[in-house]
Amino acid sequence: MTSQLANKTEAWSARFSEPVAAIVQRYTASVGFDKRLAFADIAGSLAHADMLAAQGIISADDEAAIRRGMAQIKSEIEAGQFEWKVELEDVHLNIEARLTALIGDAGKRLHTGRSRNDQVATDIRLWLRGEIDAITDTLKALQHALVALAEQQADTILPGFTHLQVAQPVSFGHHLLAYVEMFGRDAERMADCRARVNRLPLGAAALAGTSYPIDRERVARALGFEGVSQNSLDAVSDRDFAIEFTAAAALVMMHISRFSEELILWMNQSVGFIDLADRFCTGSSIMPQKKNPDVPELARGKTGRVTGHLMGLLTLMKGQPLTYNKDNQEDKEPLFDTVDTLLDTLRIFVDLVPGIRVKPAAMRAAALRGHATATDLADWLVKQGMAFRDAHELVAHAVRHADSLGVDLSALTLAQLREVVPQATDAVLPLLTLEGSVAARNHLGGTAPVQVRAQVARWKAQLA
Amino acid sequence: MTSQLANKTEAWSARFSEPVAAIVQRYTASVGFDKRLAFADIAGSLAHADMLAAQGIISADDEAAIRRGMAQIKSEIEAGQFEWKVELEDVHLNIEARLTALIGDAGKRLHTGRSRNDQVATDIRLWLRGEIDAITDTLKALQHALVALAEQQADTILPGFTHLQVAQPVSFGHHLLAYVEMFGRDAERMADCRARVNRLPLGAAALAGTSYPIDRERVARALGFEGVSQNSLDAVSDRDFAIEFTAAAALVMMHISRFSEELILWMNQSVGFIDLADRFCTGSSIMPQKKNPDVPELARGKTGRVTGHLMGLLTLMKGQPLTYNKDNQEDKEPLFDTVDTLLDTLRIFVDLVPGIRVKPAAMRAAALRGHATATDLADWLVKQGMAFRDAHELVAHAVRHADSLGVDLSALTLAQLREVVPQATDAVLPLLTLEGSVAARNHLGGTAPVQVRAQVARWKAQLA
Amino acid sequence: MTSQLANKTEAWSARFSEPVAAIVQRYTASVGFDKRLAFADIAGSLAHADMLAAQGIISADDEAAIRRGMAQIKSEIEAGQFEWKVELEDVHLNIEARLTALIGDAGKRLHTGRSRNDQVATDIRLWLRGEIDAITDTLKALQHALVALAEQQADTILPGFTHLQVAQPVSFGHHLLAYVEMFGRDAERMADCRARVNRLPLGAAALAGTSYPIDRERVARALGFEGVSQNSLDAVSDRDFAIEFTAAAALVMMHISRFSEELILWMNQSVGFIDLADRFCTGSSIMPQKKNPDVPELARGKTGRVTGHLMGLLTLMKGQPLTYNKDNQEDKEPLFDTVDTLLDTLRIFVDLVPGIRVKPAAMRAAALRGHATATDLADWLVKQGMAFRDAHELVAHAVRHADSLGVDLSALTLAQLREVVPQATDAVLPLLTLEGSVAARNHLGGTAPVQVRAQVARWKAQLA
Amino acid sequence: MTSQLANKTEAWSARFSEPVAAIVQRYTASVGFDKRLAFADIAGSLAHADMLAAQGIISADDEAAIRRGMAQIKSEIEAGQFEWKVELEDVHLNIEARLTALIGDAGKRLHTGRSRNDQVATDIRLWLRGEIDAITDTLKALQHALVALAEQQADTILPGFTHLQVAQPVSFGHHLLAYVEMFGRDAERMADCRARVNRLPLGAAALAGTSYPIDRERVARALGFEGVSQNSLDAVSDRDFAIEFTAAAALVMMHISRFSEELILWMNQSVGFIDLADRFCTGSSIMPQKKNPDVPELARGKTGRVTGHLMGLLTLMKGQPLTYNKDNQEDKEPLFDTVDTLLDTLRIFVDLVPGIRVKPAAMRAAALRGHATATDLADWLVKQGMAFRDAHELVAHAVRHADSLGVDLSALTLAQLREVVPQATDAVLPLLTLEGSVAARNHLGGTAPVQVRAQVARWKAQLA
Repeated sequence: MTSQLANKTEAWSARFSEPVAAIVQRYTASVGFDKRLAFADIAGSLAHADMLAAQGIISADDEAAIRRGMAQIKSEIEAGQFEWKVELEDVHLNIEARLTALIGDAGKRLHTGRSRNDQVATDIRLWLRGEIDAITDTLKALQHALVALAEQQADTILPGFTHLQVAQPVSFGHHLLAYVEMFGRDAERMADCRARVNRLPLGAAALAGTSYPIDRERVARALGFEGVSQNSLDAVSDRDFAIEFTAAAALVMMHISRFSEELILWMNQSVGFIDLADRFCTGSSIMPQKKNPDVPELARGKTGRVTGHLMGLLTLMKGQPLTYNKDNQEDKEPLFDTVDTLLDTLRIFVDLVPGIRVKPAAMRAAALRGHATATDLADWLVKQGMAFRDAHELVAHAVRHADSLGVDLSALTLAQLREVVPQATDAVLPLLTLEGSVAARNHLGGTAPVQVRAQVARWKAQLA
Repeated sequence: MTSQLANKTEAWSARFSEPVAAIVQRYTASVGFDKRLAFADIAGSLAHADMLAAQGIISADDEAAIRRGMAQIKSEIEAGQFEWKVELEDVHLNIEARLTALIGDAGKRLHTGRSRNDQVATDIRLWLRGEIDAITDTLKALQHALVALAEQQADTILPGFTHLQVAQPVSFGHHLLAYVEMFGRDAERMADCRARVNRLPLGAAALAGTSYPIDRERVARALGFEGVSQNSLDAVSDRDFAIEFTAAAALVMMHISRFSEELILWMNQSVGFIDLADRFCTGSSIMPQKKNPDVPELARGKTGRVTGHLMGLLTLMKGQPLTYNKDNQEDKEPLFDTVDTLLDTLRIFVDLVPGIRVKPAAMRAAALRGHATATDLADWLVKQGMAFRDAHELVAHAVRHADSLGVDLSALTLAQLREVVPQATDAVLPLLTLEGSVAARNHLGGTAPVQVRAQVARWKAQLA
Repeated sequence: MTSQLANKTEAWSARFSEPVAAIVQRYTASVGFDKRLAFADIAGSLAHADMLAAQGIISADDEAAIRRGMAQIKSEIEAGQFEWKVELEDVHLNIEARLTALIGDAGKRLHTGRSRNDQVATDIRLWLRGEIDAITDTLKALQHALVALAEQQADTILPGFTHLQVAQPVSFGHHLLAYVEMFGRDAERMADCRARVNRLPLGAAALAGTSYPIDRERVARALGFEGVSQNSLDAVSDRDFAIEFTAAAALVMMHISRFSEELILWMNQSVGFIDLADRFCTGSSIMPQKKNPDVPELARGKTGRVTGHLMGLLTLMKGQPLTYNKDNQEDKEPLFDTVDTLLDTLRIFVDLVPGIRVKPAAMRAAALRGHATATDLADWLVKQGMAFRDAHELVAHAVRHADSLGVDLSALTLAQLREVVPQATDAVLPLLTLEGSVAARNHLGGTAPVQVRAQVARWKAQLA
Repeated sequence: MTSQLANKTEAWSARFSEPVAAIVQRYTASVGFDKRLAFADIAGSLAHADMLAAQGIISADDEAAIRRGMAQIKSEIEAGQFEWKVELEDVHLNIEARLTALIGDAGKRLHTGRSRNDQVATDIRLWLRGEIDAITDTLKALQHALVALAEQQADTILPGFTHLQVAQPVSFGHHLLAYVEMFGRDAERMADCRARVNRLPLGAAALAGTSYPIDRERVARALGFEGVSQNSLDAVSDRDFAIEFTAAAALVMMHISRFSEELILWMNQSVGFIDLADRFCTGSSIMPQKKNPDVPELARGKTGRVTGHLMGLLTLMKGQPLTYNKDNQEDKEPLFDTVDTLLDTLRIFVDLVPGIRVKPAAMRAAALRGHATATDLADWLVKQGMAFRDAHELVAHAVRHADSLGVDLSALTLAQLREVVPQATDAVLPLLTLEGSVAARNHLGGTAPVQVRAQVARWKAQLA
């Protein structure tokens, strides 16, 4: 009798009267990309075989043979000697066919009580769990790099922008810590997602469970899963975890895009707040003077890539009836590319951040354009008893006056200030300096250097 | 001195030399949609005023006046008598202007130590927290309805599909519980998201914090926030929570789209598994015989709406430099519409599920087309010692044989079966019945009615 | 006999045993938003009635009554006196019910030979055709405004950026004309889309055509359609035109987002290339000195809104079996909002462009930072016989030399230049000025002012 | 002097003090995917060299050398012997470096008067133009296949669905032609897009044009471009054509998803309208009886992929300031994958359609469930003088009556019909048959077989 695994160039099974067309074989094959699941597939098969033996469904000898065969397959893959065959469709059949070639009938018994539907769901979850751990580690490394730079720059002042207009002076360390917060939330989301990834679908078989006396909890323990999926139909058709992960990844990339936008802006010659190390930049094929911030630009561009994958996955699952449909095979490439994009991008930023050269003089000069301490004047007036809304309007007049004199509000003499704000006294001038303004915002979450240092300490402890 | 609140038909402040153009006023105004934040805005203002008074920043009299004024404003809004003015831009300035009209200077002091940037972030979070709670309750109500129907239908058998082809018989109760699992994960994600929504941004002021001695933790406690955002720049520019919520909502809608697809399919005359109560259907303007499953169709269509909002929000935030930019105002309409769509859709499904009329005979008839118990025959052969892959191939021959006789595999006589599977005995025939097949999948997550009842019990306990 | 139109609070028709639930009525009703199709609906009905009479399907008296009734309904709508009823679902049944109330049985005969499925498809196309014309006109008005500013600014030089780094000096007029090109392509796409919108679906009836001897070409002529849809099943289920239009709209908004990004950047105090008129800006509730470019920021944000609608519509149609499904009702709100967003945004930019105050001194100063004419030096060397790649490398040394002297390449003396580029002569210095560089790019599409003026003339002729 | 092309493992140019980091090299390199532009790159370079020589910018000898070198490079690539180097970043520098190695200084002169910015834009447009032609041809081949099947099936009747409920009987040929219409619109959109792709950006150089006396129209003629882009800044930063193409592709895939959904539904055992040839299906690893419609399922899944790419590209371009930014490099992979997905999918459907086995008996049986000719009865009543709305209601009663008798409306005897519709005569019964109903819809676009044949003839002529 011809085996199902041997005759893919013939008909699929006795039920079929002609083989799959060559173009169909190529169109439907996934081994070109799902072979990256190979080690997860082997780990899952070993845990399954162990359980089958423990339950008496296969013999101990069979299990030993499977273990031996899989060890060899693993070596072959690691050595780059494993021959992947498109006509065997996917990673699962490739490995199973090789196993059967190596160990004979015991290999054919491995698939007892499972199906590719629950097998692939198990493989992706195992693989993704590992990638989430790598991403989480890299997020933390990036936070470390940012915290280290923030500590150095706690006293450096640059203009804080709202609407890209000079708003109030802020500590550059404080600014960097805003990104540490964002990546912190990203890590939280990854942890939440991991918990839902880490549930075992194996045992759902094709869709309904199996007639063998399997022990799913044993398999879950062996593979480190925190739980077992409670419904077989859901187990084989659920791709929520892929979408949830990609949504979390899209948020990480969105944060990266914001940081990149700022790095690019800060590198512009008119702004000049920072320089990036040459090793993160390239030149132009035509303009000899160019040094371009390629890395943040490309990272900003890759935001669209991950957002696109998220949209693709949501479209993929929309309106699918239960249970497994072949559409689901399309979950892998976007998921794989999302993981690659995210890890590559985070890793390069871990390197890039320490290579940021800060230009405090340019930051300071920019903070002195735009009347950045106008709010401090209003606040002082309120403390003298004026209602805030009235103070706001009086300071607007003072700003107009400074504009007419061609100077920043902070550069007005007391006499000049008094022409519009007669109640001003000597006490107000220090409050209108950059340092005075920054130091005054001394509360939880505020930009005062003392608060920045407290946050640095908090993060260091948390990341340790 | 003209107040900032009174002169929007004149210039914005003394700093401006001309008023905002009428078209700009309309283009930039948000009061048309953000007035739904009114009660959150008032709650936030009251907690802020309480803290300002406790810290000695405003007087106790001011606070009392603010409290009195806000109580009146709340009544006016509830009574539909509050006059919303487009020229006052948004919900915040509308309420503050009315407050100042009612209580004078104390109203002007309310805005001390805060900005609209942190105020609006606080309002949205307060509002969204409440909506998440309502959504979670409705998800649970929908789970309740599904569990109740599943309990009734534990013994009803329909064909389980993979690739929309008859795969194996399953319990209809088991099928319904698959959706209970999905909505259960949705509720988990809502809970995870809620924790990140429930952090207080107030105190970040415009972007850098404030020079007043504010007590942010007091405000957080008063408003029921679980934490205080640790970085003012992040606090005013973070919209992660809106995106995370919308992503979670898109998953809920995706699940709804799958369930809807099935309801529509099951209503088709050729399938005929169920009927929906007339009150959830409409007819045709031209075809007198029509009864259309409008509700699931429309719900399936609304999936795109929420996915679109998610895309819009991700695009919105992509590449925004810190901190607050006016772009962010565009966060509200997609968020509001996502909440409305989700709540409306879930509520209507809570009503719709008990109105599903199950047609067990049609389900049974369909399960008897497609050789649904072929796997059971293969499993039996394996238990007799054959390797699974060989059994698979032999059963494929048996299926071909049944096809040639024009009957389902389960309808073969023992003699007919033995023509292809000579080792078959009397023992195998009961296993090939629908009931035999379903009952055999008797393990955690399997479709056996006893397992379905166990899951019903688990969910009842969990939802209680 | 109760009429279908009169009894929606009872059952839908005799075929139904209970009325539609109140929540379903609200969930499925579209009259809240589709009433904006009212005039298109009336126009379509009049053309249909005219054809029915011409074909002898209804009497001339019936047609006259319909015409009279519709005239009154139109007046009632214009006067705001038409009472829209949610229980009548949509704009079509609302108008038909009113018509029947006004003219009796002739009103009931109007729906002969058509269905709501082809009626709504006709209405949307008629309405969208008009909106496309309005959008095209507004795109042209925006191009006009940009061309006028470009003409004034042909000789103004600013730094052209690649990678947001100073690249080469360009004419500001040339820069503005880049957007004229973009909006020109947008207008082309709108025209291409209009041709596909402008095909008549009426006559497809519910899905299969009708048994009445209708004359579809007569209706098409009456309504100004350029063609008749050739397949009834396609006619009622096609929403390509809505998606194609929204994709074209998303491109317009993407162009607006790029222009907005630049306006915001140019307004930043460190860049300072332009100022926007006060009437397009607003201030801050807390920072008295602020003047924010709200309009471009909000427009940039609205890009996501339209991209989201496109995503929503593509998701909506994915995987829908033929023919009309209720899902399709969800096409309207995204389409309507896309049109509104596009028209509002374009109109406000038509006003905003003439209010741009150009600051040539700041532009010039910025163009003198970044060695913007380095390419001109390389080009000159090539013209002296050096291979381009060698010249590129030599000029990189010259740039490094200028950096070490702390000056722009264009500010080097001949002696200084010769230290690195010994072959340099007096002839090269004028080429390194901003004016020399710009004037040298004198070919079709180049930035030389003479080319800018030629393009201005071309566009003026084209837009006339 | 070290050449820019030779020292990428050293610094980028003399302007840089350190080489690009290895991780950056990998992150920013595009040669891994953009090498598919090689032949377009060579064609563009040859046209550029021809123009440079014609304008006297390079010598005739140089041009001959370039032509010779490029011929060799082309052979090397075709033979798979060309060595692509990641450290040379992209396809352009790889080819140019090889050219210079082969022919010396003439190779270094090729880049005179152009930049990678306009070069890559030219390459993509040339490449995409060819792919659009291939897609258009494949769309036509698919239309051919559908038209051929439609011709065979003009008289086959199946139930036309609205809301997936039986609506009216239709010709299966008519149904297939609905897709011919969709793919026809797709071909129109591809043609419209092609016209905008087919404009020459070369000559824009880095962004501003060049100081050499280039002749862009000569280059355009040589490369078959229909026009020359009129603004250099726009030319290097425009990616509209990629987005427009991807939007058109997303619509093709949406149509494919609808057709796939129907094929899958029609294959379901309860529906059974068709069977797909075995060569387009696969089996199950566990269920021996399965034959799954993998191809349409996977195609439906790939809809999300292309929609995702469209979203990615729109996100990519959102808010980019002029002119070229490195982000744009991210345009290629989604564009390439969109082309591959589209061509693969269309080609497989060209093969699949002739392999559809139609089961007319199942179609007919389904059309006789659901009172599909109820509208015909209403139409007949109208022709006897009843108002349509009244006829609709009376027929609803007749449907209810048939339901109570457990038969289809078309199976009522005249006596049974008269119990509800007393005016019914012998004349009405033939109208209520499937054939009578279909034949009655005999107008442009209607489902009558004679109309289907007319449409088949029209399409045959158009596709010829």
